[in-house]
Amino acid sequence: MRMTVNIAVAGASGYAGGELLRLLLTHPEVEIGALTAASSAGTKLGVHQPHLVPLADRVLAETTPETLAGHDVVFLALPHGHSAEIAAQLGPDVLVVDLGADHRLADPADWRRWYGGEHAGQWPYGLPELPGAREKLTGTKRIAVPGCFPTGGSLALAPAFAAGLIEPDVTVVAVTGTSGAGKSLKPNLLGSEVMGSASAYGVGGAHRHTPEFAQNLSAVAGEKVTVSFTPVLAPMPRGILTTASAPLKDDVDEAAARAAYEKAYDAEPFVQLLPAGAWPATAATLGSNNVQLQVAVDTGARRLVVVTAIDNLTKGTAGGAVQSMNLALGFPETTGLSTVGVAP
Amino acid sequence: MRMTVNIAVAGASGYAGGELLRLLLTHPEVEIGALTAASSAGTKLGVHQPHLVPLADRVLAETTPETLAGHDVVFLALPHGHSAEIAAQLGPDVLVVDLGADHRLADPADWRRWYGGEHAGQWPYGLPELPGAREKLTGTKRIAVPGCFPTGGSLALAPAFAAGLIEPDVTVVAVTGTSGAGKSLKPNLLGSEVMGSASAYGVGGAHRHTPEFAQNLSAVAGEKVTVSFTPVLAPMPRGILTTASAPLKDDVDEAAARAAYEKAYDAEPFVQLLPAGAWPATAATLGSNNVQLQVAVDTGARRLVVVTAIDNLTKGTAGGAVQSMNLALGFPETTGLSTVGVAP
Amino acid sequence: MRMTVNIAVAGASGYAGGELLRLLLTHPEVEIGALTAASSAGTKLGVHQPHLVPLADRVLAETTPETLAGHDVVFLALPHGHSAEIAAQLGPDVLVVDLGADHRLADPADWRRWYGGEHAGQWPYGLPELPGAREKLTGTKRIAVPGCFPTGGSLALAPAFAAGLIEPDVTVVAVTGTSGAGKSLKPNLLGSEVMGSASAYGVGGAHRHTPEFAQNLSAVAGEKVTVSFTPVLAPMPRGILTTASAPLKDDVDEAAARAAYEKAYDAEPFVQLLPAGAWPATAATLGSNNVQLQVAVDTGARRLVVVTAIDNLTKGTAGGAVQSMNLALGFPETTGLSTVGVAP
Amino acid sequence: MRMTVNIAVAGASGYAGGELLRLLLTHPEVEIGALTAASSAGTKLGVHQPHLVPLADRVLAETTPETLAGHDVVFLALPHGHSAEIAAQLGPDVLVVDLGADHRLADPADWRRWYGGEHAGQWPYGLPELPGAREKLTGTKRIAVPGCFPTGGSLALAPAFAAGLIEPDVTVVAVTGTSGAGKSLKPNLLGSEVMGSASAYGVGGAHRHTPEFAQNLSAVAGEKVTVSFTPVLAPMPRGILTTASAPLKDDVDEAAARAAYEKAYDAEPFVQLLPAGAWPATAATLGSNNVQLQVAVDTGARRLVVVTAIDNLTKGTAGGAVQSMNLALGFPETTGLSTVGVAP
Repeated sequence: MRMTVNIAVAGASGYAGGELLRLLLTHPEVEIGALTAASSAGTKLGVHQPHLVPLADRVLAETTPETLAGHDVVFLALPHGHSAEIAAQLGPDVLVVDLGADHRLADPADWRRWYGGEHAGQWPYGLPELPGAREKLTGTKRIAVPGCFPTGGSLALAPAFAAGLIEPDVTVVAVTGTSGAGKSLKPNLLGSEVMGSASAYGVGGAHRHTPEFAQNLSAVAGEKVTVSFTPVLAPMPRGILTTASAPLKDDVDEAAARAAYEKAYDAEPFVQLLPAGAWPATAATLGSNNVQLQVAVDTGARRLVVVTAIDNLTKGTAGGAVQSMNLALGFPETTGLSTVGVAP
Repeated sequence: MRMTVNIAVAGASGYAGGELLRLLLTHPEVEIGALTAASSAGTKLGVHQPHLVPLADRVLAETTPETLAGHDVVFLALPHGHSAEIAAQLGPDVLVVDLGADHRLADPADWRRWYGGEHAGQWPYGLPELPGAREKLTGTKRIAVPGCFPTGGSLALAPAFAAGLIEPDVTVVAVTGTSGAGKSLKPNLLGSEVMGSASAYGVGGAHRHTPEFAQNLSAVAGEKVTVSFTPVLAPMPRGILTTASAPLKDDVDEAAARAAYEKAYDAEPFVQLLPAGAWPATAATLGSNNVQLQVAVDTGARRLVVVTAIDNLTKGTAGGAVQSMNLALGFPETTGLSTVGVAP
Repeated sequence: MRMTVNIAVAGASGYAGGELLRLLLTHPEVEIGALTAASSAGTKLGVHQPHLVPLADRVLAETTPETLAGHDVVFLALPHGHSAEIAAQLGPDVLVVDLGADHRLADPADWRRWYGGEHAGQWPYGLPELPGAREKLTGTKRIAVPGCFPTGGSLALAPAFAAGLIEPDVTVVAVTGTSGAGKSLKPNLLGSEVMGSASAYGVGGAHRHTPEFAQNLSAVAGEKVTVSFTPVLAPMPRGILTTASAPLKDDVDEAAARAAYEKAYDAEPFVQLLPAGAWPATAATLGSNNVQLQVAVDTGARRLVVVTAIDNLTKGTAGGAVQSMNLALGFPETTGLSTVGVAP
Repeated sequence: MRMTVNIAVAGASGYAGGELLRLLLTHPEVEIGALTAASSAGTKLGVHQPHLVPLADRVLAETTPETLAGHDVVFLALPHGHSAEIAAQLGPDVLVVDLGADHRLADPADWRRWYGGEHAGQWPYGLPELPGAREKLTGTKRIAVPGCFPTGGSLALAPAFAAGLIEPDVTVVAVTGTSGAGKSLKPNLLGSEVMGSASAYGVGGAHRHTPEFAQNLSAVAGEKVTVSFTPVLAPMPRGILTTASAPLKDDVDEAAARAAYEKAYDAEPFVQLLPAGAWPATAATLGSNNVQLQVAVDTGARRLVVVTAIDNLTKGTAGGAVQSMNLALGFPETTGLSTVGVAP
């Protein structure tokens, strides 16, 4: 007899919830239990996620501790604040995977400044490729899934900090598809506005992912890293292309940089340092849990420049969540996840 | 009797040439003369530019000094190298407007390093909004039209350097539409590859526009400015969204930054510093000669971050060329150019 | 002294209103007066239409008969029902141009069936290229601007009916950009949903433009024409590509078909029958008032197939409105309108 | 010991070949052998298909009978003409799956008229959902994979013909993504041309898929069916949305139509008749082998209108090929294929 874990997804009508279900449908160790939503409760999943054909007739329940009870794993794809509230009412033996921001930050002051209200406490951080992260995820009952931007940006520079190649003064510009903003009905997210246009927002250190970047990179660097982060919205549904750079320390050359990234990522199943001369494109990662990455040394500006491509909904959200769940439950880390993108 | 200037366009079948003709068709002081091309010579313009209806039946001539002779103004929208070769054979009384790179750089060593071969010499630089540029364009017979990336990036930071607000260590990431790459038939420019994908190229200081950025900003700063420049290709036909940043000097705050940009651009007909809280989107500039711009002070990272949006084919190429032509010929600077974009 | 007409635009924050203003800003005979809106009243136009730079600081008034009073021309870009209500309160000497559906249909029963409520009566129909339409528009004080789909579809087949080439049993499939749906905040209009997807809606004769098609074509044919109309939403902000076909009458060949279209459109300033072998693309018409058209005889299926490309916001809405206004006021018909598209 | 079949893919650098490999990488019964190409022979697959990470270092061989020898299954994703030439040199025990057109048509006269040259003979047709097709595929050694357009269009109307609901006079307009045109370097396939534009081509019965439509539907109808087919290119990499219609026979109503489609497709694993009120969107099928379908009765025009959505590369090409291979080899028909799309 095959033992499977029973999972619930809160926020199943949204983009993160839909991507979770897309992945979980092919996960051999998982049985899909309760699917819950807020205003969409009572409707069929097929109305909101017509691509999830095997689940089309499932009716969405309301998101409450009761509807989520009785599952081995509960995924929370909820607005920040709401996930902490729900999580507090779930038992200690349930594996709770929070795709929201509530449990990412270590510093309560950071939380108050960027999100407001009371801090719910930090959980093991679901980015196994960061130094030390995999160990904390193994066997845990609580997982804080990283933000989509810090996923691509932290993996871009962590090896360079770990190898002592760069100064702690980082610039990140990340070009994102629109699904990162969710299904919220805002005029600037309408197709007519988005198509044919690139636009900036949250400029000047105003984006809430900024402290998460700094927390991740400071931990690796062993000193305070400042991050200037600018997100750019591009006309595509999925994908984040991150350009991260920092001043080089003396005498660092391309070979040293490349060696540091090979060392960090050669054994990672989902990170590909591309061959010299190839540059990442988000389309190649679409639907996969991959991070495609390239490194350059700008000898004129004396900066290390790293570019990463991910699928914001997969590695940047739901795929990272499943990868971390696998570690927490003792499944092989790659179970239910693909290294093959859907292109073109 | 109305006197008009007679203009020729070399490279009329390409994107830059097409945009020039789109603008010149509404320019009241201009009569469109010879249209020339390379491999398309002998075909009708309508085959290549179906949107230029009034010129659809014009037959393209071959690009030679002879076909271009006898015009008051000659626009060269040609591959670099070729424009210098043709320009050298045009008379001193003809206004020659080079949309290629041949006459942008001051330093022959820069030219040899980035483009190779012999330097053709520097011409007045067609970005009137830069300090001192407008004066040099007035009455000139030779114009070097800026590259599309340096247009958006130089205008982003020139006022801050002019006001002494930032350190000379600049990071620029510019998200561009595909028309900047022209009509060259390369696999990575196919619609199937481009749509749904953001990709990097020319990373690490490898893009040829890098020395042009440095030249422009160093001139304003009065000291050597280093520029780390990364272009990103996004799925849109037109537009460049540039995020430029640099370390703030001590005590510079948002008010000082904003004041510097107001001072620089309040009288400029084509540059709009957006109201506080609004951020540039390339779609709003489409088809216009506008630069939309916003400024932020990142107090955490202590950097000035400036975002500009332009249409790469208009202000970034053909519009800038017409604006400079107007100055050279003594027409009002805005003649034939629009401050109204085509959106959505 | 120059006499200009003073115009007001009701619904200035929407896509149709924005396109009207884009065109009217370059119209030499027009002065832009009141700009009104519903929920956006009190805000600046620049918030909603950042591309309309010269009007950015205009404050939107509420849409009432009072705010619209005192203008020579009032454009109504309002939801259907609302425009009839406002129009009834405007004086007989004001030129009222209704971009909504209220005054398009002749038959009150059609109105009740498709829109519900009381019929406001038919006005002269703003598609001058249809037989007899131009005469009725000349000097009129009331104009019903056609729907965007009937614009492209009626011009596709009217010449064939006028020449007696086809049977009255028409199939129309029209691929449209998203701006035709306006700025309404619906989940299926989000960029994430629209990009990378083509979808059908209003299938099976359910779209409200169906009776308008039938009315136009029946009038030309002199008999009842039935129209099977299917709209398809495509991932682009603007443009409608219409494929219209009908069974050929006996002995009609390609030459006869082409001759009929040449006869109908050779003198029309905004309609281009493309050279044999060229096929319409919406991008070539973007921002222009053009209709690009091609005709084919399918000898196997014995059908005439006609394809038209328009910009739904220009010729399909605001450009058609300005063209008709020109006729009503005695200006040259092409004033303020362009035959040059913005491409690529 | 697990027995797997060894497969080769000729044309592995193109879009059809890439999609085949994407699917075969997850097929549990398959081992991927030789990958061949024409001008790309000698290069690594990762250069052409960066999304196929597990195969990135495979070197492409030249497409010859020798490189393809020794495999249980050979997929031919080659230009028409070339696949017949290669196929003729492969042994009778090899399962040959031709993704090109060479073996689709029954009538040599049709082949000569539409493709030219000598007819290579008809093979079992790889669209199992058509009446009688599944039986012919079971155990076969030769499979002709349908064209992408006839896949969506034949499944749209076959049930109506089987149930005697419609007249044999069909109109099909199919909106396609750009990958259907392959990686050929043509100006009209450049991203700058494609994005923001819908365009027609092959209008008036000129597209080579026309006789394939007629062949499929005539076989089901038991009489000659004429098809007016128009393809439209839309700005998306993948997907075909087909609108097919035909005159209704007397007394057919919506219930009868719906019943015919339920009967035809309720047991089909890859075809979903959507709930009443829902309409197909190609994005929901992306990457899956699904056909999403809706049916409407237009009582005004007395036509049956059916809309289908597929992924042109999956169900329309490579997925259909794998599905048919499964039947030929005796694997469960759905092996290695997904009913879950990648959206948004």
